[in-house]
Amino acid sequence: MAEQEYPVGDRSRVRRKPERGSHERAVVDAILDEGLVCHVGVVVDSRPVVIPMSYARDGGRLILHGAAGSRLMWALASGCEACVTVTHLDGIVVAHSAFDSSMNYRSAVAFGRARAIDDPTAKRRALDVLTDHLIPGRAGEIRPPTDAELAATTVIELVIEEASAKTRSGPPSKPARSIPRGVWSGVVPLRLTALPAVPAPGAPGEPPASVRRVGGRVSGT
Amino acid sequence: MAEQEYPVGDRSRVRRKPERGSHERAVVDAILDEGLVCHVGVVVDSRPVVIPMSYARDGGRLILHGAAGSRLMWALASGCEACVTVTHLDGIVVAHSAFDSSMNYRSAVAFGRARAIDDPTAKRRALDVLTDHLIPGRAGEIRPPTDAELAATTVIELVIEEASAKTRSGPPSKPARSIPRGVWSGVVPLRLTALPAVPAPGAPGEPPASVRRVGGRVSGT
Repeated sequence: MAEQEYPVGDRSRVRRKPERGSHERAVVDAILDEGLVCHVGVVVDSRPVVIPMSYARDGGRLILHGAAGSRLMWALASGCEACVTVTHLDGIVVAHSAFDSSMNYRSAVAFGRARAIDDPTAKRRALDVLTDHLIPGRAGEIRPPTDAELAATTVIELVIEEASAKTRSGPPSKPARSIPRGVWSGVVPLRLTALPAVPAPGAPGEPPASVRRVGGRVSGT
Repeated sequence: MAEQEYPVGDRSRVRRKPERGSHERAVVDAILDEGLVCHVGVVVDSRPVVIPMSYARDGGRLILHGAAGSRLMWALASGCEACVTVTHLDGIVVAHSAFDSSMNYRSAVAFGRARAIDDPTAKRRALDVLTDHLIPGRAGEIRPPTDAELAATTVIELVIEEASAKTRSGPPSKPARSIPRGVWSGVVPLRLTALPAVPAPGAPGEPPASVRRVGGRVSGT
């Protein structure tokens, strides 16, 4: 069923180690939904520029936002092509040789054309999606953005035209040749973890439900 | 003194919130040296592609590597322009409004033209730099790459032509208008942490010094 997979094109086909690749929506979306920061690539004056941004997935589109007037936001708002990549680092794979050493990771690469969301209602909704992606439930705890805040923010949507995921997990691959005895190999697992929340001066000590949810959201389990 | 800063150009000038930006080599290099994965942007058929890769800084250049024959490696080896971005996520900044909420982060963006390192001695040295960046001291613990492994690997150098860093730290910014009472604000700190090393089947239980150094390397302290 086509709709269970993202379209595959020349940009998104996984060529190297295709056994690590997937175009399944469930796989790609899980990687996108766990991430806090994406790396957005655009072409400016024929040259690549890659900028980290917060983001959220909303169905088959990605939402980005930034200060109105920034050069990147201007490029995105004017409808340029973009590549949005999200990577989770799960471990360092230490093999008996440098050649077989590697990383455990899950990454998603999405391609599409960006465009500005100008309609105020749609813009407010997209900003709520962004806020709740980062801090689940926060949009319902705070006042809505003012008109001035809305005007100062450029909100971008990128309908995902093509996407792929690539992942590696597990111990070092066993090469055909023999492994020297006594040389350690294995994996150093890595995790992004949330430390206890630190209240700002004058804030109540106890964080609200949304902030308490960040820990579970970050660990991704 | 010019050599204490990376050159600034049209691509690398920090325009938005310049108080968060820096071109100082010490600032940029510290961010690059802490990272395990970078996001490499190139232009393929006039469109942006962003791929996560392991990397290492070696003086004023970045070293990348990958399987010979991959499309991205081919583009890099043939001398394309690249943008390499490294981002550390330090926290989620929870303000009393969505507008003032943000992320604490440190990111470095480097621009340059890629080229293949073909000379075998230079290639071996660059691979050792890569290995030791990820697992400090590992290159000295294991056998050198074989000629076949060397041939199967494309090693790229990117001399940094322009670079900039951008960082945010600390609590939510205080807006001029009053903060509603009772609404929590603060920071949820985030850290990439290394869990205890997991030996591969048949490997000695005790990891070597290089692997034991990964924990301190990842925490970045």
